[in-house]
Amino acid sequence: MVELSKLQKFLVEKSIIFPIAELYGSFAGFFDYGPLGVELKRSIKDLWWKRFVEKKSDVYGMDGVIITHPKVWEASGHVSAFQDPLVECRKCKNRTRADHLVEDKLSMSADGLSLPDLARLINEHDLPCPTCGSRDLVDPKYFNLMFATRVGAAEGDTAYLRPETAQLIFVDFPRIYKSNRGKLPMGIAQIGRAFRNEISPRNFVFRGREFEQMELEYFFNPKSKPELNVPDIEVNVLTREAQKKSESHKKVKFKDLLKLTSEWHVFWLLLSYEFVLELGIKPENLRLRQHTKEELSFYAKDTWDIDYNYPFGWKEMVGIANRGDYDLQQHAKFSNSDLSVMDGGKKIYPYVLEPSFGVDRLIMAMLSDAYEEEEKRQVLRLNPKVAPIQVAVFPLVNKEGMDTLAKEIFDKLNFRAFYDDKGSIGRRYRRQDSIGTPYCITIDGDTLKDKTVTLRERDNMKQKRVKISEIEGEIGASF
Amino acid sequence: MVELSKLQKFLVEKSIIFPIAELYGSFAGFFDYGPLGVELKRSIKDLWWKRFVEKKSDVYGMDGVIITHPKVWEASGHVSAFQDPLVECRKCKNRTRADHLVEDKLSMSADGLSLPDLARLINEHDLPCPTCGSRDLVDPKYFNLMFATRVGAAEGDTAYLRPETAQLIFVDFPRIYKSNRGKLPMGIAQIGRAFRNEISPRNFVFRGREFEQMELEYFFNPKSKPELNVPDIEVNVLTREAQKKSESHKKVKFKDLLKLTSEWHVFWLLLSYEFVLELGIKPENLRLRQHTKEELSFYAKDTWDIDYNYPFGWKEMVGIANRGDYDLQQHAKFSNSDLSVMDGGKKIYPYVLEPSFGVDRLIMAMLSDAYEEEEKRQVLRLNPKVAPIQVAVFPLVNKEGMDTLAKEIFDKLNFRAFYDDKGSIGRRYRRQDSIGTPYCITIDGDTLKDKTVTLRERDNMKQKRVKISEIEGEIGASF
Repeated sequence: MVELSKLQKFLVEKSIIFPIAELYGSFAGFFDYGPLGVELKRSIKDLWWKRFVEKKSDVYGMDGVIITHPKVWEASGHVSAFQDPLVECRKCKNRTRADHLVEDKLSMSADGLSLPDLARLINEHDLPCPTCGSRDLVDPKYFNLMFATRVGAAEGDTAYLRPETAQLIFVDFPRIYKSNRGKLPMGIAQIGRAFRNEISPRNFVFRGREFEQMELEYFFNPKSKPELNVPDIEVNVLTREAQKKSESHKKVKFKDLLKLTSEWHVFWLLLSYEFVLELGIKPENLRLRQHTKEELSFYAKDTWDIDYNYPFGWKEMVGIANRGDYDLQQHAKFSNSDLSVMDGGKKIYPYVLEPSFGVDRLIMAMLSDAYEEEEKRQVLRLNPKVAPIQVAVFPLVNKEGMDTLAKEIFDKLNFRAFYDDKGSIGRRYRRQDSIGTPYCITIDGDTLKDKTVTLRERDNMKQKRVKISEIEGEIGASF
Repeated sequence: MVELSKLQKFLVEKSIIFPIAELYGSFAGFFDYGPLGVELKRSIKDLWWKRFVEKKSDVYGMDGVIITHPKVWEASGHVSAFQDPLVECRKCKNRTRADHLVEDKLSMSADGLSLPDLARLINEHDLPCPTCGSRDLVDPKYFNLMFATRVGAAEGDTAYLRPETAQLIFVDFPRIYKSNRGKLPMGIAQIGRAFRNEISPRNFVFRGREFEQMELEYFFNPKSKPELNVPDIEVNVLTREAQKKSESHKKVKFKDLLKLTSEWHVFWLLLSYEFVLELGIKPENLRLRQHTKEELSFYAKDTWDIDYNYPFGWKEMVGIANRGDYDLQQHAKFSNSDLSVMDGGKKIYPYVLEPSFGVDRLIMAMLSDAYEEEEKRQVLRLNPKVAPIQVAVFPLVNKEGMDTLAKEIFDKLNFRAFYDDKGSIGRRYRRQDSIGTPYCITIDGDTLKDKTVTLRERDNMKQKRVKISEIEGEIGASF
């Protein structure tokens, strides 16, 4: 697996992802996506929307605001409890996450530890400030991660930038449910930015302060059951029990997850896992991890993550939580409204299964997975479906009609295409290999005579002659 | 033309666009898009990206952050001058835009009027507070429209939510230019949210506080000329001269714009206008309006808007500005960097042509344009390309195999499709008419025998029998 520093250097060099406002010294935890990065993002979002909204007749899309009403976050618990433990160095004034300090220095999980627990561990082991090494640290305290702003002329009202897209779905659920003639189960999906004022952003875009989420809230009667069709596949699983015994993940049959969690949970774990496979991420770098009792949110019935084996270890890429009826109950309480719905002749508060995807985390996983250095080249083995450029078109030389014909071919291609007429063919191939382009087409002297081009594949570097009329078919077959 | 209040009521009723956080009393100027609204937005953004990025080999995409480095906005002038004149009522404390007050009450344009000018007009005409009618108003003062927040643990650094996406493009231009082997002309395009703390948001999503932009900055050598191929079409034009004489717009040949502005400006006016036509907006509701000398930004060489004839009058929908080299010069100055590029053997600061589209304003125009009430039905005559649902599939009755076959057909359709098996066929047709679905397919008893369905068109309500295998072709032909 590629090291993070090398991957990061590569991404910045190619302008795929880079720090913002470089002219002005940047801002920690904020990144812009360049020409290739934005295409990667667009492909992932489009494939997700297709799979989870367009192809599912019981899921509806929505697109909510970023600056949100403060009451939404009071009801959700974010105003009082969306916080991380912060520890400050008395000497250099650096602030860092207390749980990360403990995890990094003591090689243990600090999930769910209280402030006194963290203070005790820091003092007992005399942990140093990660910036200056001083041992003079202030006892940990909580820091709320929401970005606030003020809305309206003059002093205005406090509002928050959404720290997740999910709550907007809960608040709009009653309206969307009614406007679709109310029937359970029903899902609502949303893609968009979310914002968390991380104390110490790290691991490039893995833990940024601004990021993109794809979230789906699936509302169902807890007494109902899904139509479940689990294929006979194996998957790495790390159960709650295994974690208690400090064991690592084991390969198990997907359908055996039914012994560990609810059928609806298995249903959404499967759809989510299949989506991750569709992106082309290798199954050996994936595992399903069940949250331990300690880390589980108090309202969650159960939560599973799809972890990826990042350059900095196994970390959450996708989270699939069973939130029960907590959110709707909270909004009912805070708005003093009845948000129950009729199902099976009874008034109920539906349960909610929430598959939540971080776009930037998926991109980090895909890039880590795809990056390879071979003896003679750097190659990004991206799935052709999501490659920023799907086919590059080269005239062998920029004259004798090869350029005109190459442009004609380029204009007609129905893929994300790129035209390049500069440098030797070898260098042009290498350049495309390094940014993940699965196919290159070269137009040469023979093309003018027999209407065939050289089609060259990124992965095996094989070349073959293909008729111009058959290019689309040859390439399309591999998607 | 439909009245705004009626259109707004319709959009909220259908959950296409509605006020945020209704459970908590909403927030002026913020709106969520529901299931149909989000599809409309997605189609517009996809068509724009296809036309302006994918099909243009000299335009690159990017995707930048929303929370931006404050220096960016100091350099751009937003920190000191992105402001509107605010007038406060001493009695009811309501704050409103001084220029809007003058425009509404005196039926004149207040663009470019200074604070003393506005104060004089308000006092001379003894204008009343629009909320309580009191004439006791504080003299106008400026109010900065940027939303601020703080980044980092503890007190943090001030940062701004971008009030436009354009400046991020300027700041990333040097990097993206280099990574594409620097060559002019070159465009960079971006789609995303922007935020303005409007003093008095109004006209539904036309002037919201959070909105979506599609912006393109096209960098070119002012000495260069475009390959210009102006088709022989006519367009409504309102020139600077005509406005001076209080004349209205005139129909002129598109190529006659070359007498009024630069060739590069005509080039981007044409591409922008063609895009608006592609969305299906009627040309008679469009006009190109040149900014007057008074309203032109001090750095702009020239600016033209594509106005739409909204229910509340002719207003800007798209703006196409020639910003000269102002922005790059400003960022060079503030970052103390040389941002010039080599072109034609000389170091130059390229000029910038900026076509800037407001997604929400396009949606408002499309909906105003498409909404019609006929004797027996409400119909939304949206272009099939952008209709949220492109085809609805109905089994005549929900049994006898019609439902199974209807679902099979639904699953195979390669359009945004919707399945509906409830209510009479007439009611189902009406429901789809009202949300703009161009085609409905009904599966009846005959379908089981002869494999034909009823294909019904929204606009003329005509029905015909079509073979199942020919549905895609029949529908696709009209896109």
